[in-house]
Amino acid sequence: MASPLFIGLDVGGTAMKAGVADDAGRPLGSVSLPTEAFRGQEFGLERMCETIRQAAAAASVRMDQIAAIGVATPGTMDIPAGVILDPPNLKPWQNVPVRDHVHKVFGLPTAFQNDANAAAYGEFWAGAGKTAHSLVMFTLGTGVGGGIIIGDLVIEGEHSHGAELGHVRIELTNPRQCGCGRWGCLEAYASATAVVKRAREALAQPGARSTLSLALTRTGGMSARDVFEAAAQGDGLADKIVEDTAFYLAVAATNMLHTIDPDIVVFGGGMIAAGEGFLNRIRGHVRRLAFPVPAARAKICYAQLGSDAGFIGAAGCARQLWRGKAAFDGGASNITTF
Amino acid sequence: MASPLFIGLDVGGTAMKAGVADDAGRPLGSVSLPTEAFRGQEFGLERMCETIRQAAAAASVRMDQIAAIGVATPGTMDIPAGVILDPPNLKPWQNVPVRDHVHKVFGLPTAFQNDANAAAYGEFWAGAGKTAHSLVMFTLGTGVGGGIIIGDLVIEGEHSHGAELGHVRIELTNPRQCGCGRWGCLEAYASATAVVKRAREALAQPGARSTLSLALTRTGGMSARDVFEAAAQGDGLADKIVEDTAFYLAVAATNMLHTIDPDIVVFGGGMIAAGEGFLNRIRGHVRRLAFPVPAARAKICYAQLGSDAGFIGAAGCARQLWRGKAAFDGGASNITTF
Repeated sequence: MASPLFIGLDVGGTAMKAGVADDAGRPLGSVSLPTEAFRGQEFGLERMCETIRQAAAAASVRMDQIAAIGVATPGTMDIPAGVILDPPNLKPWQNVPVRDHVHKVFGLPTAFQNDANAAAYGEFWAGAGKTAHSLVMFTLGTGVGGGIIIGDLVIEGEHSHGAELGHVRIELTNPRQCGCGRWGCLEAYASATAVVKRAREALAQPGARSTLSLALTRTGGMSARDVFEAAAQGDGLADKIVEDTAFYLAVAATNMLHTIDPDIVVFGGGMIAAGEGFLNRIRGHVRRLAFPVPAARAKICYAQLGSDAGFIGAAGCARQLWRGKAAFDGGASNITTF
Repeated sequence: MASPLFIGLDVGGTAMKAGVADDAGRPLGSVSLPTEAFRGQEFGLERMCETIRQAAAAASVRMDQIAAIGVATPGTMDIPAGVILDPPNLKPWQNVPVRDHVHKVFGLPTAFQNDANAAAYGEFWAGAGKTAHSLVMFTLGTGVGGGIIIGDLVIEGEHSHGAELGHVRIELTNPRQCGCGRWGCLEAYASATAVVKRAREALAQPGARSTLSLALTRTGGMSARDVFEAAAQGDGLADKIVEDTAFYLAVAATNMLHTIDPDIVVFGGGMIAAGEGFLNRIRGHVRRLAFPVPAARAKICYAQLGSDAGFIGAAGCARQLWRGKAAFDGGASNITTF
């Protein structure tokens, strides 16, 4: 019998990406289509199915060679129900029965998961955490996402709010307001958005001197990448922002070492383009902040799968579902329902 | 066949308590002996065995009616190895092979667990979390302990540092120093020790007026209970301390709702003598601080097993071990090794 194949679909605010993965999490081909959420959820559901079909084509496999499908989406969501509820990044969608639709169209077992959880599961299955028993992942982009995996269990929570690690509070006295409206969340300190905001605040201080001022005046804008690049070129103000960001992320990682105590903490998302120097700063702070044993033994690493983590993880969730069902059915290899 | 019986032993700095529990976690009798750690670890190991024997006698059962034993101790420890390493509350013990010793003496499957994890498992199995699928527990005493249970899995961590919830950092700007030497830990804000310390600081402010000043002058000392009682009697300064404590605990609970997203958050330990009013303050803050769905659905409750939680949870860990072994052996009812 050939190795079973799985399709994972990772739905994002801008694009959705799907790919085929084999039983070891190796991607065999993938495709990306624009999400165009504004065209409504009926269109969105059909776009998901089209992306899945094109992924099979890209990997040169037929849909009848696929054992199961996994779909990952941003929240808010009801994971056990397979429904997206009221997603801020997929307006105007509401109460979209994603899993049932995909299952009905393809007649295959279909798993459903939060996108950050799926990315963490991808890294756990086939990426930076491949040899780990447990993993905590922070995804650093516009916001801060999180995922926790313990022994193949995705900590999705009882109300689909597990591992919302961007919204763990790290400050009482003088908390920054987060995009979620709450105060003192990690995301308000360590997302790419927060890096830029803190840099702008520092530049607005009387007497602030930085190459970022010139760049800002010239281009009218600034990205987190600009801040990291200025720091790498010796700009003191930018370096302070980068150093503080590493500290905030180290506090968050340490809190996870003292809560989950995983084998590995993985940082992913666009901000890891900052490179090894930034990772080493985070590591240095963690060694100092955490209890000696986890500080010495837990690995602190960057993600390895890049933007494929989501669909690979979604394919991994499909595989979990299929394996559970295969065990339940006594190893039957033809599964057409979930 | 009679319901299997388990003995749990909870070793503390001052006393150790053991009891027999049935298959539903009901305690059938218990006994407490002084730990007297200063007499050395050989003495300590024998005292553990004696406490276990006396527990069986207290419950009027013979040791050959016991299916398995569970032992819970304070850290630091290596849980998979069954060893206490360098426990600050059991000096001068070091590298004590607790599980192997107890197993050798009684010839019964023997489980080993951290005391705060065991207390959480006790509440999960037979207490406040009896109907829950997942539970996070904070134990509020001299320090702040923690335990996390997800679907019968004790989150003990890869390096025996899971659920060290007293040492999750909640403050960056102006952190208090914790007893552990680190900065900004929950324990430095919300333990009984921290309540007294914050009250003393408030009393030392110029112009501070409080009934606690009189009590302090008269008795030379102050306990967290004094602070809670003064607050209950309308003392403004004490009330502020209590209110702040509720807020800190709510931040910690909210962080767990956004990390584990459990069915229930349980507060246990001596400080819950503060009563329902204090719990309602915590609940009020959580409703405001957490995401709407977990804020509305997660239960926030006091523990129900009091000082029995540790030995009942240890007995529950024994039962987990026994059930796993029974399943492995095809349901054999006479198990004498682990």
